Amino acid sequence: MDLWFKEIDASKSGLTFKVEKVLFSQKTPFQRIDVFETEFYGNVLVLDGCVQITQKDEFVYHEMLAHVPLYSHPNPRDVLIIGGGDGGTAREVFKHPEVGHLDLVEIDEVVIEVARRYFPEVSCELDNPLLTILPTDGIEFIKTKKDAYDVILVDSTDPVGPAEGLITSTFYHDAFQALREDGIIAVQAESPFFYPDWVTKIHQNLRNVFPLVKLYLSYTPTYPGGLWTFAYASKGIDPINDFDSSRVPSTTSFRYYTPSLHTASFQLPAFVQNLCR
Amino acid sequence: MDLWFKEIDASKSGLTFKVEKVLFSQKTPFQRIDVFETEFYGNVLVLDGCVQITQKDEFVYHEMLAHVPLYSHPNPRDVLIIGGGDGGTAREVFKHPEVGHLDLVEIDEVVIEVARRYFPEVSCELDNPLLTILPTDGIEFIKTKKDAYDVILVDSTDPVGPAEGLITSTFYHDAFQALREDGIIAVQAESPFFYPDWVTKIHQNLRNVFPLVKLYLSYTPTYPGGLWTFAYASKGIDPINDFDSSRVPSTTSFRYYTPSLHTASFQLPAFVQNLCR
Repeated sequence: MDLWFKEIDASKSGLTFKVEKVLFSQKTPFQRIDVFETEFYGNVLVLDGCVQITQKDEFVYHEMLAHVPLYSHPNPRDVLIIGGGDGGTAREVFKHPEVGHLDLVEIDEVVIEVARRYFPEVSCELDNPLLTILPTDGIEFIKTKKDAYDVILVDSTDPVGPAEGLITSTFYHDAFQALREDGIIAVQAESPFFYPDWVTKIHQNLRNVFPLVKLYLSYTPTYPGGLWTFAYASKGIDPINDFDSSRVPSTTSFRYYTPSLHTASFQLPAFVQNLCR
Repeated sequence: MDLWFKEIDASKSGLTFKVEKVLFSQKTPFQRIDVFETEFYGNVLVLDGCVQITQKDEFVYHEMLAHVPLYSHPNPRDVLIIGGGDGGTAREVFKHPEVGHLDLVEIDEVVIEVARRYFPEVSCELDNPLLTILPTDGIEFIKTKKDAYDVILVDSTDPVGPAEGLITSTFYHDAFQALREDGIIAVQAESPFFYPDWVTKIHQNLRNVFPLVKLYLSYTPTYPGGLWTFAYASKGIDPINDFDSSRVPSTTSFRYYTPSLHTASFQLPAFVQNLCR
């Protein structure tokens, strides 16, 4: 059988790859979940037709979402992940020995089961005793928290369906309240080529709430266009001027993140700068 | 008619997009040339099945190939482009008022004709009186030149077929001879995700010849994986320490390049650093 996956976006273009085997396919109350086995990318997790992670390149997104805010903060003890049920962001968070507790709020428990089964090297920290998994809606959960976290990471799907409320000023206001006075939030902020309006909206809505907002970039080959935006927002800590690169131990092994790339990733191409004016 | 283009590489994955119209299709002595009209990318130039430029995103590659070496050099008067028959790199070179002469060596004249006809905003400087178009093989041409250029730009297809000889130590040796004593060469150096062996080979072969070699990166959504490598090599000028950002006029309009990105683009992800050790 010659089976090919295609992810086509509004640009009438996208990624296609050969699928060796369909390992899992299920419709949950929240989304359709598929797992494919491929030769080049290894196992691939697809939610509602959009590639979320592949074994080959997931390290890029997870390292950059976690380490940029966590190494910007001088002492990240309590951390919250919204989404991220695959466990990849949690795995990176636990490379920071200062972290004493991590809450992971994943609305769809099937994502967690699938990650445990088909992505063992991604979900490997989901049984860490410092982790609490909360199978609930992050938008509601965060309203219950005040002055509780040092860092919040929003590791969500595209802002449609269940994740739509995760890019509103209301949500960012609740996140601000949930953060301590030196708190930092980092969120996945979409593709500047294919979804420039989302990038602008996320940046604007964060600026409605946080005094300091900056975009940074990384490249994930299986995301639309390869180039991917993250938004960093804080109550005051600057990710470049306040970054102490000596906090990054030379013994920790990264495949993407480096202290030099930490600051370089905030230097935006001109067309991305224009999205946040 | 529902027509879709696919570019599949060794990873059994790739880019696919909808084609509104096939504007041009011809087999020359060197390659097959196709031009497609698309809704999102505008016109797309495809050589031997590989996307070379699209009207939507060509600015990234052309700006980064030209401006990083040209703003690193204090006074780039004589410049050589090998390949680049579409004219995009030449267009960027002529944004530098110091440039007194540009040689463009394109082996396939049909590429130039096609660019003039279907990519007017890319080929717009091909009639510049400071430009000489030489329809010949760059590998042979460069052997005839000594101490003739300040900057050489290799704007080639993948190193197979006619472009294979453009990544050898022999070619880089000839380029070294063709450069003046403060000379710089920049070459397109492939995808670190999909063609890591080419990245390593280009870097190694340049290091066999040039005392200073550094890789830098940019993102082009229609190239495999989005992330693209360039190699910078020089007889001594360092693209970071010797870069005088005040040479970049604030009045010149770029869509990708910025002085901050100039230096940031040399900060490599860990897995790319590992390709050049």
